[in-house]
Amino acid sequence: MDEEQIKAFAQEFDPQPFHLDDTAARNTIFGTLSASGWHTAAVAMRLLVTGGLPLGNGIIGLGGELAWPNPTRPNDTLRVESEILEIIPSRSKPNQAVVKVKSTTVNQEGKTVHSFTAKLLVFKRPVD
Amino acid sequence: MDEEQIKAFAQEFDPQPFHLDDTAARNTIFGTLSASGWHTAAVAMRLLVTGGLPLGNGIIGLGGELAWPNPTRPNDTLRVESEILEIIPSRSKPNQAVVKVKSTTVNQEGKTVHSFTAKLLVFKRPVD
Repeated sequence: MDEEQIKAFAQEFDPQPFHLDDTAARNTIFGTLSASGWHTAAVAMRLLVTGGLPLGNGIIGLGGELAWPNPTRPNDTLRVESEILEIIPSRSKPNQAVVKVKSTTVNQEGKTVHSFTAKLLVFKRPVD
Repeated sequence: MDEEQIKAFAQEFDPQPFHLDDTAARNTIFGTLSASGWHTAAVAMRLLVTGGLPLGNGIIGLGGELAWPNPTRPNDTLRVESEILEIIPSRSKPNQAVVKVKSTTVNQEGKTVHSFTAKLLVFKRPVD
């Protein structure tokens, strides 16, 4: 994501100085302009939806544990890795399961900018 | 948020049928067009930043536990409530603390659409 995208997202959802202005960010813990953590999370979701996590009925999150260990900077290139941790079949609904997936979003230096251990609601394919 | 905003956010970050098209959503667990959970989370952040959670140096999230118990529908009105759960002073940095805050986002019917128990990095005001 580039500087303009970082500022546009922040203007709409997270209008704090360190997400809006490079100079203002200098005197904060970020040091330089940094993306809203929700922007990073949303970009990670796009990567999952557009190919990173092939689930037949879609990626439906119930919730999970989220972390932002490092900020996303302008012009960072992000990629996401996912690992299936657990599949918990529903007791009452035989075609449903909760799947626990850990997704880790890393930048071009290999630093983790976002991780999300999510519980997803997943449906079995219809039996043919 | 209205239908157009739900679709625009989804187009950019979460292009799944139930976030893009009311007819396609009918045959899914959502039943009607529903916002991406990341859209709901981003709107909750805007409510916090623009007055919901007054922290002098900004709201800087390290991570936390997130849940989406109910979907957000077009034209829902959301409000957010925050509760400070714990203040953990830094051992090495006397002007820093991690503050644990639970924020709950509810719609006009009082249903919770999003909750986030976050660890925030907070700085003391300079002593004058």
